[in-house]
Amino acid sequence: MVTAPVMPLAGNPLHRAGNERRDPAWLGDALAGERARFLPVLRLKVPVTAGPDSAANHRLAWARRGDWMEEAGDPILLGLDGDDPRFAVDVSGCPEPAAERFGLGTGVEFQGLRTAAPSLPVGDAAIATQARSLLGWHERHPFCAVCGGETTVRNGGGSRSCTACAAEHFPRTDPVVIVVVSRGGRALLGRSGRFPGNLYSALAGFMEPGESVEEAVRREVGEEAGIRVGEVRYLFSQPWPFPGSLMLGCLAEGLSDEIAVDPEEIEDARWFTRNEIVEALAGRSEVLSVPQPIAIAHHLIRAWLAA
Amino acid sequence: MVTAPVMPLAGNPLHRAGNERRDPAWLGDALAGERARFLPVLRLKVPVTAGPDSAANHRLAWARRGDWMEEAGDPILLGLDGDDPRFAVDVSGCPEPAAERFGLGTGVEFQGLRTAAPSLPVGDAAIATQARSLLGWHERHPFCAVCGGETTVRNGGGSRSCTACAAEHFPRTDPVVIVVVSRGGRALLGRSGRFPGNLYSALAGFMEPGESVEEAVRREVGEEAGIRVGEVRYLFSQPWPFPGSLMLGCLAEGLSDEIAVDPEEIEDARWFTRNEIVEALAGRSEVLSVPQPIAIAHHLIRAWLAA
Repeated sequence: MVTAPVMPLAGNPLHRAGNERRDPAWLGDALAGERARFLPVLRLKVPVTAGPDSAANHRLAWARRGDWMEEAGDPILLGLDGDDPRFAVDVSGCPEPAAERFGLGTGVEFQGLRTAAPSLPVGDAAIATQARSLLGWHERHPFCAVCGGETTVRNGGGSRSCTACAAEHFPRTDPVVIVVVSRGGRALLGRSGRFPGNLYSALAGFMEPGESVEEAVRREVGEEAGIRVGEVRYLFSQPWPFPGSLMLGCLAEGLSDEIAVDPEEIEDARWFTRNEIVEALAGRSEVLSVPQPIAIAHHLIRAWLAA
Repeated sequence: MVTAPVMPLAGNPLHRAGNERRDPAWLGDALAGERARFLPVLRLKVPVTAGPDSAANHRLAWARRGDWMEEAGDPILLGLDGDDPRFAVDVSGCPEPAAERFGLGTGVEFQGLRTAAPSLPVGDAAIATQARSLLGWHERHPFCAVCGGETTVRNGGGSRSCTACAAEHFPRTDPVVIVVVSRGGRALLGRSGRFPGNLYSALAGFMEPGESVEEAVRREVGEEAGIRVGEVRYLFSQPWPFPGSLMLGCLAEGLSDEIAVDPEEIEDARWFTRNEIVEALAGRSEVLSVPQPIAIAHHLIRAWLAA
């Protein structure tokens, strides 16, 4: 049995304390204790200790409890670092949302996760991924979809509860299939109109109700590029917190050649040769660039080359 | 490349028309045309032509347009059967929700999907799965989680749109990991307090924000049974419309022996030998029964035996 490699943004070292967090007394102690640390998140940006020297010195910056919390959102439990509770806190509503205000010291700046992640240690990037997903979900769910009532945080952010109808709502994770289709030694890649330069990537799309991963791959490739797909093989997965996806990475076998792009979904799709992709990965190509290593697509393209 | 087998409830033969449905004119024609057919769904039960003879005669029962639709919910496009549009319609609010009222003829009864699926052809069970997931989601989302405003159906049920803040909401699919853990020739199975008799199944749990499939497997097995997990291998997936899950079926390698059950999550977990599982699958065991073939757990257990 060969396990999947750990993708960037995965590899979270925290123990999520899924059982403990349902105990209000435990949660109260965790929050009030001396060892609690808080990640202030400002409009979904995370505080990063950007060392003066190399990128390798970057770390997430954790705050201690302080009066700044009176103006911040509810602390959302991320989990335990050993015995030490770690929380994320939305500080977007604070009047002075500067690093100093939260006692984070100098040299700390708020960075978007796409910017911050490549310079952070694996575990810190994964914690930031979890924090961004969770806070983003809470921010987008102040009301109950069942009755329209107001919702409040429950179980340290593990869910939200409706104050009117008592419905409980859990954080949402949207499964997305992402796939490199292979046929006759070439790989199918596509580009959205939003992509810069000559960037092409693996085809991807949200899963729909009532389909399997394998069916979703066939449907998406058919809709976007008009290519029929046979065998589908799952390789690895990645949490993608923009805002809350689970990327299910696959390789698949193409059964037809002629591409028919749906212009509402993508701008172009093409078959690329091994050599074109090798050159693109090496940054030597003038006709093709491929996604950076933060994206699962990068690793799927490498896996296709190695297959 | 070996593809995953098709699980029960997957294998939907309809073309979902994901591009076409965004065109209001196309949708209007599809709805008004002579070839449109409608699946009346009554409190999430589907109409089944229960043949007088064998189970093999069962089929979904499709209605034609009629004045009954004035009292029913918005038609939700399932897709195209060849060129013929197929819709699901919630008839729970109709004053006379009987099969005859919808022109379905005699011998049609509304059945829950767990009851109906084993007697339906693969494609019909999959269409019923899609219909149940979609209608259930629409039923639970009349309001906007962002602002509390009312939402209305869009794109033939492909999404809902908020009448107040214009936020667009898409059907939700919750990824769930489900796993048979293997160690020393034995398999780890667990039971919930709700399970009848001596039924044990694969351990399972909802994925959380910011984790990969492989991490979710390790977390769930740790939380529920206290077993450490090494390698994780994805095998196959299944849509599970109760109410809207995507089951991601895995085998995994156990790294420890001693089970510590979390009583809030499950009632018991045990290591079972190959022979115990063979006997259970054959229906000959007095100490163990395993899930029926409609559940992905059944197929994971068989895959573990074959591995």
